[in-house]
Amino acid sequence: MADLVADRRDVEFVLFDQLNAEQLTASERYSDFNKKIFDMIINEARNFGIKEILPTYMEGDKQGIVFDEGEVRTPECYRKPFERLKAAEWTAMTEDTQYGGQGIPELISMAVQEYITGINFAFASYAHLGHGTGKMIELFGTELQKKLFLKNLYTAHWGGTMLLTEPQAGSDVGALTTTARRNPDGTYTLTGNKIFITAGEHDLAENIIHPVLARIEGAPAGTRGISLFIVPKFWVNDDGSQGKRNGIFCTGVEEKMGLHGSATCSMALGENCYGLLLGEENQGMKVMFHMMNEARLGVGLQAFTHASNAYLYALNYAKDRLQGRALEQILEPDAPQVAIINHPDVRRMLLEMKAYVEGMRSFTYYVASCFDHIKTAGSDKEKAWHQDMIDLLTPVLKTYNSNKGFDVCIKAMQVHGGAGYTKDYPVEQLARDCKIASIYEGTDGIQAMDLVARKLGMKQGKVFQEFIQTINQTIDQAREFEALKPLAEKMEPLVTAFCETVAFMGENLLSPRFKTVFGHSVPFLEVMGDLVMAWMLLWRSVIAATRLANGAKKKDLDFYDGQIKTADYFINNILPVTHGKIASIKGFGNAAIEITDKGLGA
Amino acid sequence: MADLVADRRDVEFVLFDQLNAEQLTASERYSDFNKKIFDMIINEARNFGIKEILPTYMEGDKQGIVFDEGEVRTPECYRKPFERLKAAEWTAMTEDTQYGGQGIPELISMAVQEYITGINFAFASYAHLGHGTGKMIELFGTELQKKLFLKNLYTAHWGGTMLLTEPQAGSDVGALTTTARRNPDGTYTLTGNKIFITAGEHDLAENIIHPVLARIEGAPAGTRGISLFIVPKFWVNDDGSQGKRNGIFCTGVEEKMGLHGSATCSMALGENCYGLLLGEENQGMKVMFHMMNEARLGVGLQAFTHASNAYLYALNYAKDRLQGRALEQILEPDAPQVAIINHPDVRRMLLEMKAYVEGMRSFTYYVASCFDHIKTAGSDKEKAWHQDMIDLLTPVLKTYNSNKGFDVCIKAMQVHGGAGYTKDYPVEQLARDCKIASIYEGTDGIQAMDLVARKLGMKQGKVFQEFIQTINQTIDQAREFEALKPLAEKMEPLVTAFCETVAFMGENLLSPRFKTVFGHSVPFLEVMGDLVMAWMLLWRSVIAATRLANGAKKKDLDFYDGQIKTADYFINNILPVTHGKIASIKGFGNAAIEITDKGLGA
Repeated sequence: MADLVADRRDVEFVLFDQLNAEQLTASERYSDFNKKIFDMIINEARNFGIKEILPTYMEGDKQGIVFDEGEVRTPECYRKPFERLKAAEWTAMTEDTQYGGQGIPELISMAVQEYITGINFAFASYAHLGHGTGKMIELFGTELQKKLFLKNLYTAHWGGTMLLTEPQAGSDVGALTTTARRNPDGTYTLTGNKIFITAGEHDLAENIIHPVLARIEGAPAGTRGISLFIVPKFWVNDDGSQGKRNGIFCTGVEEKMGLHGSATCSMALGENCYGLLLGEENQGMKVMFHMMNEARLGVGLQAFTHASNAYLYALNYAKDRLQGRALEQILEPDAPQVAIINHPDVRRMLLEMKAYVEGMRSFTYYVASCFDHIKTAGSDKEKAWHQDMIDLLTPVLKTYNSNKGFDVCIKAMQVHGGAGYTKDYPVEQLARDCKIASIYEGTDGIQAMDLVARKLGMKQGKVFQEFIQTINQTIDQAREFEALKPLAEKMEPLVTAFCETVAFMGENLLSPRFKTVFGHSVPFLEVMGDLVMAWMLLWRSVIAATRLANGAKKKDLDFYDGQIKTADYFINNILPVTHGKIASIKGFGNAAIEITDKGLGA
Repeated sequence: MADLVADRRDVEFVLFDQLNAEQLTASERYSDFNKKIFDMIINEARNFGIKEILPTYMEGDKQGIVFDEGEVRTPECYRKPFERLKAAEWTAMTEDTQYGGQGIPELISMAVQEYITGINFAFASYAHLGHGTGKMIELFGTELQKKLFLKNLYTAHWGGTMLLTEPQAGSDVGALTTTARRNPDGTYTLTGNKIFITAGEHDLAENIIHPVLARIEGAPAGTRGISLFIVPKFWVNDDGSQGKRNGIFCTGVEEKMGLHGSATCSMALGENCYGLLLGEENQGMKVMFHMMNEARLGVGLQAFTHASNAYLYALNYAKDRLQGRALEQILEPDAPQVAIINHPDVRRMLLEMKAYVEGMRSFTYYVASCFDHIKTAGSDKEKAWHQDMIDLLTPVLKTYNSNKGFDVCIKAMQVHGGAGYTKDYPVEQLARDCKIASIYEGTDGIQAMDLVARKLGMKQGKVFQEFIQTINQTIDQAREFEALKPLAEKMEPLVTAFCETVAFMGENLLSPRFKTVFGHSVPFLEVMGDLVMAWMLLWRSVIAATRLANGAKKKDLDFYDGQIKTADYFINNILPVTHGKIASIKGFGNAAIEITDKGLGA
């Protein structure tokens, strides 16, 4: 039977074969670690996740959260594992030891997160929001603020949030109306209403520290006049002791398609709601964007892990479920039933899911490894190169993983047949839970605008060119292997066509047809995601082919051959469609802009 | 504001402009009807649906069904409208007057069904299953059986079902183990267990008539030994009076992702469960397939109407929801917020949804009209032509509508942003309810096998060629209009490429690479669906262009122009991707067949 969640063999392959995690220990920063320690940490997370978090997944969905007079009760089954999560300080692990962390690399933490966040995102969100809040305070807070808040936030003893959205201000943050008034003691009094606040109120933490976006009275309109405030549920005195209950209250929770264990709260700030300024006045967007970028990578991870789990459930189901006869015996009524994994269309679905899941794992871990390379870089240039990659790839990782992750969950339902539509199996929940990923932390449309209008042109297009060069290096390596040569030769024209498309989009962005560019921006992002998948899968194949050439162990032969077959599938079955998408973009159809609202039926 | 459900303007266009419903009244069979009567019937259905069924949609999902000691309680809110549905005999309308019907054309009934089935499929399923059961009895039953069952089934006073699936026999019907033993009085005693039985037990009808697939003791294995039985919940005596409670009981209901108002039952047959043979012994599959084909078209309608409703919700939301500034003013913080319908990516999503919804409406209505043409045909040849089209197109209609319908629902959520993920709006429910369509009544994989292995080769490929000829006629008509010429010219190479693909698939089906054909059969079906969409939208454009050329009324200009823009979008933005899918199929990648199970991770 395949693993229940997060294929451990593949995690190992990506960490140590593809992304050379062990090499990190050569740097001073990570010199206390070695592969054995990394393995130990991952295996411990795996034990914890599978034994203690996994049983809460379907149970938490069923129990849901209960809102009662301003209080939010999380699913009963979350309590015990959440206490364990706090005690082991799992969520602080990449942080400094003074804040409860162990200072492990981001790359290794991806594997750990597959077993914690990846197993039950609703459960883990109560801890992760605290981490995001902590990160903002670490980067922009005063020494006192760090001392007061950081350790408790990083270790999930206190929760965090992000109070951004208001009914009239979602994607359009600048339209928010929550106000802040300076008090003589340096604090601010806040008034306003926020919606869609994940973990805005709950019973898993002793305190909740709310970062709140608000406009100081008299500040400019739009995003230029937004400041960020720390608004604790219970005030934290300067000596760290707990003060009064602050005037921030949950007024209701959303009923949602999925993530039933995660409290999505409406929050009211008023009647003595006090906050501390974080960073400088009117610089709230800058602070918020830092958190937002971290959150976007988190969403990419969320969607990918849902897909990964869904794939493994589908694989196990397909291997066990007997139905129909082998195609060779289809006309023989007495032929035995075979497992559905033998049916060509089921195999196609499984291999397609595998291709996306493994491509997304490599992609997600790759971006995480860029953070480590920034920390260990020997030069500013090297540092900048990795930051550039993170900036360029973040909108693609967030959006592509969200959509492909959801598609994989839906395919997993399909493999399960009627059973997949029932709550007897977790796949329908994985699909429901995953769906939010393409919406929150910036919709597909927002991400695609960011990619096309800002990221592609970074440093006069130099960043984009370096990205392409990196892909070309992998293609060059693949060409060295007889088995991979045909794949490399099919990748090349795609890279060329993609670069032409980028030039084409860039030219038109500066023309009167710029609206048409944005009408094609989401399909463009998808094309870029396809290219990244093909790159990652070809890269994996290069390693697999190398291992096979060097005489791999017998037990690894199927795994390595499977890597090459997966790249084969993606490059031969999916990339022709990607070429079609490119043709569509370059056809530059303009009907969506030209049709009148009435023509749409409005 | 656009219509809440089923765009009435577009329904009118498809019925009377595209498919010439009025022409049907020239035939003797429909000579009692005229356009005014058709309009009246549709408007009455619309009033009923919007006023009485629509309020039960979200409410029924919330209430769900309750199983209690063998009894199934449907949502309270269903009761009143269901009584109205029975009283008005809505579900019998295409049937003969002696069975409670009005004998209206199938084509007109599509419009009626958009307002009944389309508004709440879970609700309507209690009536439709009865209709399907009735149709089997009408076609294969004895005169006495017809007399006893038909009218009550057609008018929804009695419910119906289809007891096919067993735990080990889903797609593989031949593996069923339910048995029947002949009794001296001509009845049969049935024993077995069935699962996934829609409307297997409920409180909306006075009786439920179960068609049950079972194997008579001693009958051959596989599908050749299956017979069909009528098993009433309450026995029906020969004089029509109600007899004893029969030994068929509901043992549980499924908890599902959606269709919460629809009871999906496990059924136990035993301890004095009696049935009547329907049709001949061992001919059960033939009878069942007739019902199944009707059910597949019903699923196509279900998925399309979910999409249609989702589109209208998204359109209305996009028109009302203010967020962000116009692209021309994006750098001006004081510029007013605009409705999101103005944002290029939102317009792209809306137009894409519109294209699929309207293409699916035309497609679904077109197949329904074939049934009418069979009834009114002047010759056997004409009759056969239409039956052939139904047979060829059924797997495509079922599967393509299911998948595109679901995609449209998901896009509607995306247009709603965060709101779309909440239960404050109906779009997430539309997505959940729609998802089952690609699974039940034969999964995508089953449908694609039917298409590729049986339907394409019907009558030595002649049926397929006639299908292509029909499309070519539309292309020829389009070429006559200056505005449509570029679209026609882009359709032509697609038709050519598609025909080549069909030939390619056919050749390989008879080669040792036949498994690879089935590994590409679902993508092939999707290509055929894309072609049908393009055909339907181009056909609509021909009519719109004709109307515009003949001086259309001012109030219709946007609608007609919108038709051309919609075809423009599909042909320029989607068909290039279809060409990519064709390239993928003809590339004939074989990795999914070649990869080992262990290589997949199993």
